[in-house]
Parts: sequence; structure tokens; C-alpha cells
Amino acid sequence: MSLPDDTQLLYLRLASHYQGAIESGSLTPGDRMPSVRSLTRLHKVSLSTALQACHYLEDKGWLEARPRSGYFVRRPRRVSLQPNSEPEQPLQLDAAQYLGIHERVSEFIASCELYPLKTNLAQAFGSPDAYPTEALKHAATRALRSHPEVLVEPTPWHGESGFRAVLARRALDHGMRLTPDDIVVTHGCTEAVNLALRAVTQAGDTVAVESPCYFGLLQIVQSLGLRSIEIPTSPHTGMSIEALELALQTQPSIRAVVVVPNFQNPLGSVMPDAHKERLVALCAEHGKALIEDDSYSALCDAEQSLRAVQSWDTDGTVIYCASLHKTLAPGMRLGWITGGRWHARIKMLKFAQSRPNDALSQLTVGEFMASSAYDRHMTRLRNLLRERRERTAESIAAHFPAGTRLSMPRGGMLLWVQLPPIRSPHALFEQALREGIRVAPGWIFSNSSRYDNYLRINCGIQFTAEVDAAIERLAALVYEQLV
Amino acid sequence: MSLPDDTQLLYLRLASHYQGAIESGSLTPGDRMPSVRSLTRLHKVSLSTALQACHYLEDKGWLEARPRSGYFVRRPRRVSLQPNSEPEQPLQLDAAQYLGIHERVSEFIASCELYPLKTNLAQAFGSPDAYPTEALKHAATRALRSHPEVLVEPTPWHGESGFRAVLARRALDHGMRLTPDDIVVTHGCTEAVNLALRAVTQAGDTVAVESPCYFGLLQIVQSLGLRSIEIPTSPHTGMSIEALELALQTQPSIRAVVVVPNFQNPLGSVMPDAHKERLVALCAEHGKALIEDDSYSALCDAEQSLRAVQSWDTDGTVIYCASLHKTLAPGMRLGWITGGRWHARIKMLKFAQSRPNDALSQLTVGEFMASSAYDRHMTRLRNLLRERRERTAESIAAHFPAGTRLSMPRGGMLLWVQLPPIRSPHALFEQALREGIRVAPGWIFSNSSRYDNYLRINCGIQFTAEVDAAIERLAALVYEQLV
Ligand SMILES: Cc1ncc(COP(=O)(O)O)c(C=O)c1O
Ligand SMILES: Cc1ncc(COP(=O)(O)O)c(C=O)c1O
Repeated sequence: MSLPDDTQLLYLRLASHYQGAIESGSLTPGDRMPSVRSLTRLHKVSLSTALQACHYLEDKGWLEARPRSGYFVRRPRRVSLQPNSEPEQPLQLDAAQYLGIHERVSEFIASCELYPLKTNLAQAFGSPDAYPTEALKHAATRALRSHPEVLVEPTPWHGESGFRAVLARRALDHGMRLTPDDIVVTHGCTEAVNLALRAVTQAGDTVAVESPCYFGLLQIVQSLGLRSIEIPTSPHTGMSIEALELALQTQPSIRAVVVVPNFQNPLGSVMPDAHKERLVALCAEHGKALIEDDSYSALCDAEQSLRAVQSWDTDGTVIYCASLHKTLAPGMRLGWITGGRWHARIKMLKFAQSRPNDALSQLTVGEFMASSAYDRHMTRLRNLLRERRERTAESIAAHFPAGTRLSMPRGGMLLWVQLPPIRSPHALFEQALREGIRVAPGWIFSNSSRYDNYLRINCGIQFTAEVDAAIERLAALVYEQLV
Repeated sequence: MSLPDDTQLLYLRLASHYQGAIESGSLTPGDRMPSVRSLTRLHKVSLSTALQACHYLEDKGWLEARPRSGYFVRRPRRVSLQPNSEPEQPLQLDAAQYLGIHERVSEFIASCELYPLKTNLAQAFGSPDAYPTEALKHAATRALRSHPEVLVEPTPWHGESGFRAVLARRALDHGMRLTPDDIVVTHGCTEAVNLALRAVTQAGDTVAVESPCYFGLLQIVQSLGLRSIEIPTSPHTGMSIEALELALQTQPSIRAVVVVPNFQNPLGSVMPDAHKERLVALCAEHGKALIEDDSYSALCDAEQSLRAVQSWDTDGTVIYCASLHKTLAPGMRLGWITGGRWHARIKMLKFAQSRPNDALSQLTVGEFMASSAYDRHMTRLRNLLRERRERTAESIAAHFPAGTRLSMPRGGMLLWVQLPPIRSPHALFEQALREGIRVAPGWIFSNSSRYDNYLRINCGIQFTAEVDAAIERLAALVYEQLV
């Protein structure tokens, strides 16, 4: 059979032919693909075209390669656990003000340091093999060779201009239209969120946050002398817009709303577009700043990137904060911000808080992100994370007791495991640490005790027999604690 | 004559012999040194020992080499200007609260950007030739080669441990005894001072600062919602201890004192040791935090390093902040802090504000600072700055009208030029900008108009004919404005 003639590249046409066959059910999971050699015969294409098509389908998650056996239609891994439960009282706001997260996090860190670590499932980024170390090293070496002067001359205040241009271009994928001048480079997303909150609040103000909420954000809120109000958040669709609306109507001290709309940490939830749109409109209507922390959206399984909430903004209500910590280089501390109508104030605060970022890392990452190597890295990373997430989830499903719940995010690297009722989550956590297994305990994600029987598990690291054993051991500890 | 026999290296003995001769007046400025060849005969030393001795004396500022004529005893350049005047009412505190420095600095920046720049005398660091670009580049390349993983793995939270160890060792020179764990690496001294102030104050509190005061500090103070009280500061001995004492007695809202004891920006003043000691005691007595910004102390002409105020601290009253921006690598954004009794809080704030610094620059600078190349760089830098400072001052003395005053700092790179009464300092500044000459105008160093007829001039750049011409032109503009 030869392929219909159109303007697409040959390998893409070949790939879409087989994709269609899988989607329509003509080929089903587990079926063997025709061998590369037979593809050349069947479709009258070259060996390299056939190979390219198979690689493409593998990248997209339709095929999997089995060593020495060729390509097979991929079996979507199905995890047999119930999805996480929705917030119990979605319209009840928590009167208890947030306080003391520093102590919780400090205690967490202190206990972690007590015992030698064997398996670290507590982080929120991938292991080194997930990132393009060699390519970044070469880019850095080239930058040093061609611009050694950046070591001894200050950079433009708001970031190296080539790097800002690349960031603006890449932001198009998330529906954002920015000029390089709309961007300020920061020390990670953490500094960006600090600047955003400093720009729109004063000590004593209240900030609406998700519940559960990334503990780093709760720390920022506390360290700036702010109060937080935890808004019920669905493990599937993110912050409840109704609950937020109620909060905005009844709590005039709220100055800003902070959300992680895409692959929320720890939930993995993604706000549907309709919610994103309403969220922006709601904040604009109430004159509140909407701070979007978008550290994970590029890690979506689907090829189509997720849209940033910022892309619905028409009047500068949204302050958008991003990070390269999860996607590209956990060691380089690069993030950025675009500040909506507070942009000038944010620029000034960045200057007063830490001056510009150093130029070397910006040149390095700027060069890499401008090239197609970045796209290849991202495709590889997304597939690798999906694979690791699925295997980790399978292991949890296989080992944990009945009543354990888990929703499968469609991207990112975090699993939020809801345990059945157990006697002492703290004892469980301590015992795991004692055995060298580190997870992020539920209680650092809230000021309440609402998430005490949750664990956050990182799937960014290689899924090895050791990781599998650690999860099995965690499960055994849960069994011991079952009520 | 052969030299007295002791355990010193031969060249050092030879050098100290001639140094003694100069100090005692046996050799006077302008005298020719014996030629290298005759030194070998006179003292029965090798050619290389004689040469080493001459280089050493040149480095230390006792000799100067004249092309094709040999070494001469250096003529200390004497600048014929009156020293800057002392504060007028040293015991009068400024009731007017500081406000609006952001606007002043923003206006300054905005006007600077209006005109093409020819000669930039407004900065506070050296030109690239003053720093070891090549050596840093090689150190960075080596760090990349041996530790590429640092690009994709996070660093220890408080800084790379080897780097902190070198910092602790180098701090011994300033009389400080620290362990690496006492140190948190920061994004420049700017972030360090932010963390220090955040650790000890809350919005609305008052901070005692020098007058005039580095505008960056005034910006930090304003951006944190703090008030400042400007304490009269001598251009020679720094912040007035008496005035500070009065302020602490009468203004209970003061929470912290911020000083730059060594080569204050813009004054260039150095606190005598007795003042430093009293300052620490005074703050301890009143239970106030003393924040020491020590960006310049390593840039002292004399070989003997200046002592940090922190070295007198016995009870954790002092928070010490430092920078490598002036001394080593203006492009790398490295600084550090040791937080006295607030150290734990500062560590936590650093984590919440920006997470760790990236490791690559820490490895790079750590390697360089551990080597003797760093010492050689610092000797060269100190001499180069002294030379440039003296030539710039000579040019000012030669061109500026009578009534101009200038105190010569014994280190650093900043000259604080006190103009005779002129009609409009703002018009002077604008006109200079229009002609491509940028200086730092006095009014950004205070909330008052007390320093309107001062200019701060950077001598860290090469003293070229162009710089000389720019200073001559500035002087002409002053003449035009004389009242
Ligand atoms: C939602 C979220 N925001 C911000 C961060 C931190 O970002 P960065 O490392 O760029 O400061 C994290 C990391 O865990 C995160 O999960
Ligand atoms: C007294 C003083 N502190 C801090 C700074 C800024 O230091 P860094 O560049 O390390 O943030 C400067 C630079 O002008 C300064 O003069």
C-alpha cells in the first residue's frame, strides 16, 4: 500500500497512518507492529523513513520498543486504584489562619537529616538522567569561550536579552503573547512568587491559596507576614472557583490569589480551560491580583501544551511565574516573571532584592532553549516521566492496602497518595525515614491536619527495583498502621 | 653590604632593608633605586632575588618602574584639595523620614537611559581589566568538566561546602572566626542585606543608616516598608557613634543599625577600630541588631586587612554581609552572610526567598579563592585601584574650581566630590549626561537635599585620556554653574 499524497513529510504520513489504525482499534495494545524492514516494502519508503516513523510513534506513546523483538502497540497502563476524593466540604472556608508552616517544614527537614537516606521520593524534580547534562555543559563551555567577559561585567538588570527573547518565544506555546521586555529573569520560581506577593500585598494581608498547597508557597506567605486562606481544591480540576468566589465575597482582606493551574503540587490537578477563564474574570472583577505559578505545564503527556491562565488576561490582573527547575536544569536556579499591571514595581523590587541574575547561566540556557535540542529534550522528558509515573503508580496499586486512592495526573512527576485510615501517619513517616525511605508527608501541605494521611511521591527518578522495594516497604508500614 | 642573617626569604629581607631606608628618609621620593645589577653586587644576591625584591616593593607601593630608566622611589601623589567637610550638626537627627528613594533612583536611571553614554563614572566596581577573567573562565571550564552534574542537581541549601570553607578561611583576614556552617551564600550582598533586615524588622520599623548612604540600601529599606533615620557620618571616621547613641536613646522604634564600616559608599570613610568596638558594644547594650555591609574592606591599600566590626561581636549582635562583586567578579552575583543570633532565621528566609545559589559559580570562585592566584589578584587590584584613584583625584584637583573638596580614601574605588556652591546641581548632572558623561549624583544618597552638591565618581575604570577629558568637561560645567 502506498500512502496518500499530501504535503506532509513522508515519515509523518506513515506514522499517522498507523496512529489511525491504533485509534480505530485495527491494531490493539500488545499487537506487534510490522517490522521496519516490512514497512519499507509495504509502503515503498526508505529504511530511515520507516525508522523515523516508528521513533515518532514511540515518542508519542503509541508504540513501545521491546529489546530484540521490535515495536509493539503500547498497553496503556491502567491503575486499579480509586481516584482521590474530592474536598469534603467544598464551600466551607477554613477560619483557622495559616501559621507555623516554617516549624512543620523545619521539623520535616530536621527529621530527614537524622537518618541515612537510601531512597528519596520526597523531591519534586527528576533525577540527573532526565536532563540534558552534556548538552548544557557544552553550551556553558561555549558561552564561556565566546563571552568570558560576562563573569566580570554586570548583566542587564532584568535579564540577558537573548534569553528573555527565547522565553517570550517559548511562552507562545502556552498561549501567552509577550515581548522580551515583559519578562524579568529571577532566581527560580521561588524568587518570582516572592516578588509577586511583595508587589501586591503588605504584611497582615490575606492571600487565597489552594488546599493542599505546595509547602514552599506556604513558607513564602508566612515569611512575608501574610495570612493565608486555604481554598478547597479538587484533585482533578484544581481550585474550586465557587469556593474562591465565596471567599472573595466574604473576606475583604484577601489581596491576591495564588494558583498552580497546571499539575498542581501536590495534587497533579489541571484546571479545565473554562475554569481558567472564569478564574481570571473573577479576580479581575474583584480587583485582586492573580498569581499563577506555572512550574509544570510544559510537562504534559499530550503534545498539545497546556494554556497558561495568563493567556486569558486582558487587563494585567495576572502575574505569571515560571521555573526551569523541573523542566531543564534543577541545578541552575532560573525562573522568570511577567508582572501584569505590577510589572514596573516587580522590576524595581527585583533590583532591590537581588540585582540581576548572573549572565552565564542565562546565556547557556538561552542557547539551548533556542535550539531544536530543547524540543527533543522535552519530548524525551515527557515520555520518561509518563513511563516512570505509570510504573510508580502500578507499584503503589500492587502493594498498598485496599482503600488507598490515587488519581493519575496527565503530566508532571508527582503522585498524591491518599491512604486508608491509619493510626499514626507521623509514626509511619518516621519509621520510613528510619529505614532510609523519604517521602513528603501530607501535613506540610496545609496548616490543617486535613492531609495527614496523604503522601506525596516523586516519580522523576528512575524506577528501579530499589524504588519498587521502597514502595513495597512503605505499603507494609501502612498495613501495620491500619485501624 | 650583605644582609643580616635571619629566617626570612632573601628577597623579603632585601626589600625590607630598602623599605626601611625609604621610611627613615634615607631615600626620598623621586630618588633612583640602585639598579638591579648593582643590587646583586651590593648585597651578594642573585639577579632573580634582586628583581623579586624590586617587584615586591613596587607591589607594595614603595617603588615605581619608569620605562627604560629603572626603579624610583614613588612620589606619593598629593592632592591639593581640602578634605570633605564634617557633618554640620553632628548631633542633630533628621526628623524627616526617608521616603521616595525609589522615585529618585528611578528618575536617575531613566535620565541615564535618555542619552548615549560615553564615559561612565557612575558605577561602583572596576572595569573588566581589573578582574581575573581568564583565570575565572578556566576555573569555570574545569568545574564544568569535573562536575557537570551540578547543572542538573540542586546544591546544598546554604551554599556549596567547599566554597563556604574558603570564605570562612578568608574571613580570618578580617578578624572573623567562622565555621563553614556559619555562612549562607547569597545572591550578592544585596540579597544578604535584604535577608538581614527581613530577619530583624517588620514593616513600619525604623532602621538607622549612615548619611550619606548607599542608595541601594535606601531602596531595600523602602521596599521592605521600613523607615530610615539618617545618622550623621564623618567622611573620615564613618557613622558618628555619639549621634547613633542619641538616636538609640530617643527613638525606640529603631530595630537595627546598618553600617558600611570600611570604605563606606559613597564617603570612602573607614571607622577607626575604637569606634568599631564601641559601635558593637552600643548595639549590644541596646539590644539592636547591627548589620555590617562589608563589600569593600579587602580593597585596602595597606597590606594589613581592615577588621570587620563582626570581629568584636561576643553575643551574636552583628549580622555580617559581604560581596564578591567589587573584589573578584562583578558578573557572578555572589555574596554571603553570617547571621549572629538570627542565623537560623536567615537560613530559613534564604530558603523561602530564593532557595540555594547555583553551584557552578560557587565551585568556580571557590577554586580560585583557595589558590594563591587569588592573593596575587588582590594585590594587583589594590595597587591598580590606588593608582587609578590617585590619578582621578589629581585630575579633579587640576580641573575643578577652588572650593571643591575631596578626601582621599585609603582603599576602594569611590571618590565623593564636594562641589563649591553652584546654582543647579540637577542641571549640571543633566548637562553632563547630555554630553555622554555619567556620574552618581549626590541626591540619590539621601532622602534630604543635603548632598545635592556632591558627585560620586568611580575610579575602578582605566584612567584614560578620555576619562581625564570627561573630568575636565565636568569641571567646566561646574564653573558655568558657580554662584
Ligand atoms: C508549584 C511550585 N512552585 C515553585 C517551585 C520552586 O521552583 P524553583 O525551584 O524554580 O524556585 C516548586 C518546586 O517544588 C513547585 O512545585
Ligand atoms: C555598600 C554596598 N553594599 C552592597 C552593594 C551591592 O552588592 P552586590 O552587588 O554584591 O549585591 C554595593 C554596590 O554598589 C555597595 O556599595
